[in-house]
Amino acid sequence: MAITEPRTLAGFMELLPEDQILFNKLKNKIKHNFELYGYSPLDTPIIEDADILLAKTGGETNRQIYKFKKGDTDLALRFDLTVPLAKYVSLYNYELTFPFKRYQIGKVYRGEKPQKGRFREFYQCDIDVIDKDELSLYADAEIVATINSTFKDLDIGEILIRINNRKILIGLMEYLNLKDKSTKVLRIIDKIQKIGHEEAKTSLKKLGVDENHISKLIDFISIKGTPDDVVNKLKELDIENDIFQTGIQELEIVKENINQLQVPAEAWTYDLSLARGLDYYTGTVYETILKEHPDIGSVCGGGRFDNLASYFSDQKLPGVGVSIGLTRLFYKLKEAEILKSNKTSTTQVLIIPVEDSEYDKVFNVSSQLRDSGVSTQVYLGTKDSLGDKLDYANSIGVEWAVIIGEREKKESKVTLKSMVTGEQLLLPENELTQKLLELSEE
Amino acid sequence: MAITEPRTLAGFMELLPEDQILFNKLKNKIKHNFELYGYSPLDTPIIEDADILLAKTGGETNRQIYKFKKGDTDLALRFDLTVPLAKYVSLYNYELTFPFKRYQIGKVYRGEKPQKGRFREFYQCDIDVIDKDELSLYADAEIVATINSTFKDLDIGEILIRINNRKILIGLMEYLNLKDKSTKVLRIIDKIQKIGHEEAKTSLKKLGVDENHISKLIDFISIKGTPDDVVNKLKELDIENDIFQTGIQELEIVKENINQLQVPAEAWTYDLSLARGLDYYTGTVYETILKEHPDIGSVCGGGRFDNLASYFSDQKLPGVGVSIGLTRLFYKLKEAEILKSNKTSTTQVLIIPVEDSEYDKVFNVSSQLRDSGVSTQVYLGTKDSLGDKLDYANSIGVEWAVIIGEREKKESKVTLKSMVTGEQLLLPENELTQKLLELSEE
Repeated sequence: MAITEPRTLAGFMELLPEDQILFNKLKNKIKHNFELYGYSPLDTPIIEDADILLAKTGGETNRQIYKFKKGDTDLALRFDLTVPLAKYVSLYNYELTFPFKRYQIGKVYRGEKPQKGRFREFYQCDIDVIDKDELSLYADAEIVATINSTFKDLDIGEILIRINNRKILIGLMEYLNLKDKSTKVLRIIDKIQKIGHEEAKTSLKKLGVDENHISKLIDFISIKGTPDDVVNKLKELDIENDIFQTGIQELEIVKENINQLQVPAEAWTYDLSLARGLDYYTGTVYETILKEHPDIGSVCGGGRFDNLASYFSDQKLPGVGVSIGLTRLFYKLKEAEILKSNKTSTTQVLIIPVEDSEYDKVFNVSSQLRDSGVSTQVYLGTKDSLGDKLDYANSIGVEWAVIIGEREKKESKVTLKSMVTGEQLLLPENELTQKLLELSEE
Repeated sequence: MAITEPRTLAGFMELLPEDQILFNKLKNKIKHNFELYGYSPLDTPIIEDADILLAKTGGETNRQIYKFKKGDTDLALRFDLTVPLAKYVSLYNYELTFPFKRYQIGKVYRGEKPQKGRFREFYQCDIDVIDKDELSLYADAEIVATINSTFKDLDIGEILIRINNRKILIGLMEYLNLKDKSTKVLRIIDKIQKIGHEEAKTSLKKLGVDENHISKLIDFISIKGTPDDVVNKLKELDIENDIFQTGIQELEIVKENINQLQVPAEAWTYDLSLARGLDYYTGTVYETILKEHPDIGSVCGGGRFDNLASYFSDQKLPGVGVSIGLTRLFYKLKEAEILKSNKTSTTQVLIIPVEDSEYDKVFNVSSQLRDSGVSTQVYLGTKDSLGDKLDYANSIGVEWAVIIGEREKKESKVTLKSMVTGEQLLLPENELTQKLLELSEE
C-alpha cells in the first residue's frame, strides 16, 4: 500500500504528551480564574457564514481569513472570539441576562505568513462583559483584577498591566484639531515606545501635523508616574474638551475601583502612549507585559467598545474585555525557558504485575484506586521483565508504581515504589489507597 | 450602517449559558474519567493537509468532508479524531512511549444534510490505546471499564455495552466460504436488529448466499445468553477455523478481565450480531446503548484495529478505542428530557450593593471570597432598586446573594441570602467565607 508521509501543517501547534499536559495546566488555570470572577462559559462554532465574520473586517484580517464554499454557502473560520460574541449577543439579545459576563477559550484561525512563533491556529482566552445601553465602569476595573489574578496563578513572573483610556486620546485630537487624522496619529502614538520620539515626530510631520502640536502631543505622552500622578497631571493640563475631561473622570473611577479590588500597585500602571491599533475601542484599553520579558510583547490585551454589535443589531451593546493569546504565550514561555518540559503525567499511579498471572490482582487494585479518585494506569505493555515495566513507568512520568508479584498476591500486599526517589515499601493492599492519599497531600 | 442579520449556521450547536454549563458538566465528567483511567490528553489541529485526512477515506465520508484551498495548499477539516491520531503516532513514533494511551475531546466536521439531531460540527470524546507490533487484550477489557465508569458518572441512566469480536465473524465467513462477500454480509448482520430476520434472509439470498448457509448464519447470530453462555455455545459449534477459534479465545480473555475490573454483569453483554460498519476493525468491537432509551442508538462505539496507521507508516501499530459523540448525545438527552435545563451558574455568589456608595465594601468582600476560591460576581448592572438587583441574581442562577447596604457597611456585616429558599442571615463580614464554605459542603 502507498504510504502518505505523516506531517502537520506549518503554523499549527501540535504537542508531545508532556507539553500538552503543561499547556492544559495553563489553560485550566485561566479557565479557573475566569470562573472565579464570575464569567460564564461559552462555546460558539468555529465555522460561521462568511458575511457574519466579514461584517466589520477589512485590510489585513480580511486577507488572512480562511474562507471556503460548501455547496452554495460562503463559509469562514473565526479569526477571533469577539465577532462571534457580537453575533451571539445580538442573536440571543432577548434570552440573555444583561450584564452578560462570558468567557470563551477556543481556537481561532489566521492565515498569517508561517514564521517562527506565528501560528495559524491558536487559542484565544477571552473574557467580556456586555450590557444594554450602558455598561458600568466597575466592569473595567474588574477586568484588571481578573488579569492580575489569572497571571498570578499562571506563575510565570510578575506582570505589568498598562492601561489607558481612548477618550483621552480622542479628546486630545479634537482639542488639537487633528480629528480627521486621529486614526493615523494614534497608530503612531501606539508605536512610540518601539520607534522612539524622533521617528514618531518625523511620521507626524509627514502627516501634516504642525511642530507646535507635535511637541504638545509628545509632552502629553511623556506624562508618567503613579496612577494618582497621571490623573493629577492630566487635570493640570487644563484641556478644555468634554471627551478629554470624561476620559480623566473614567481613569479616576477605574483607578479607585482597581485599588478597592486590591490589585497591587506594582501590577498596573496608566500609560498614556497606549492606543492599540483597533479602531473600535472607545474607552479603557489594556495591554499586559511580563516584567522580566518585555520582549515577548503584550500577553493580554483588549478594551472597551461603546457598541460591540453595531454590525448585527440596532441595540446599543457596550462591552469591555481582554484576550490572552495562549498558543503564542506558551510558545514564547517555552522559548524563554520560563516554562520547562519535564516528565509529567495526568496519571498518579502505574500498577505493574510481575507476571501475567498477577493481572487479576492488578485489575482489582486498579478498581479500588480509581473508586477513590486516584488516576491509575495498569501496565498494558507486552514486555516481560520488571525492569522494562519500571522503565515504562519512568517514561510516562508517573510518580508512583505499585508492584504486584507472587508474594504480594499471596499475602494480600502491594509494593509501593516512588519513581522519584526510588524508595519502596511493602504494605497491606487495603492500606494502599489511604497511603497514596496521604502521600499526595504532603 | 447596514445591519448584517445575526445567525448561526444550520447543523452547528450553539447554546444559551445554562445549557452550555450543562454541556460542559458532561464534557468535564468524561474528561475526568478518561484521566482516571490513565489516558493522557491530546489536542491535534482541526485543519490538516487534505491528503492526510483523505489517505484512507472513501464514499460517504469523502463527500461530507470540508475541503478548501489556502494559497496552493489543499486543506481539510478533520471529520474524526482517529485519522489525526494515526498521523500523530506515525509522526512521533520515536518520541512517544508505547503503549500510548491518549484521550482527545474536540470538534470534528461533517457536511451532512442538515436535519433535526444531525450536526455538522460536533464533539467527539475519544480514548485509544496504541502499541507497537502487538497490543495486549487487557486493553480491550479496560476500555469497557472506562465506558462503564464514565456513563455511571454522567448519571443518565443504565447502559448496556454490546461487545463482539470481528474475528468470530471473519472466521465464520471463511468457514462458510463467504469470504469474498463478507463485507456485504457483515453489513446485513450489523443491521439485523433493525431490519429483522426475514429481510436479512432476503438480502442474503440476493447476494447469492445459499439457503443452508443462511440458516447456519441466522442460528449463529441467534446465540444469546450471559457472556459465559455465549462463549460456551460458540465452542460447542465446533467450527474448524483458526480465526474463529482465536476470536473465541479473545472473547474468553476479555470476559475474564472485564469481570476482574469489576464491571457489573448487567452493564455489558456479548452480542454476536454486532459487526459495525467500518471495515478496519479486526477484533473486539463495541457499541453502547442507554437501556431506557435504546431509540437513541449507540452513544459510545469503537473497536480494535490491528493496524491503525497503515496509511502513514510501515510500522505495525495496533490500537483499540471508543468514541462518544457528545453533541448528538447532549441533543438527544435534552430531547428525551433525561437532561433538563435549569437555572444554573458557574458562579456561587453575587454581591450586591444597595447603593453605589457601598461598592468599596463590595469589591473588598469580593476579593476575600475569591481568595478563598469562592466563584464570585459583583453586581455590575446599572439598575437602582434592590429588587431589580435580586432579579438579576435569580436570572443568572446564582445560589447565594450577599447584600451590602449602609448598615452592613457601617457594622462590618453582610446579609447572606439564599436565592433558593429566600432565607437571609445577617453575619459579620469576616465570617462570610467560612459560612459559605460550610453551606456549600452541606
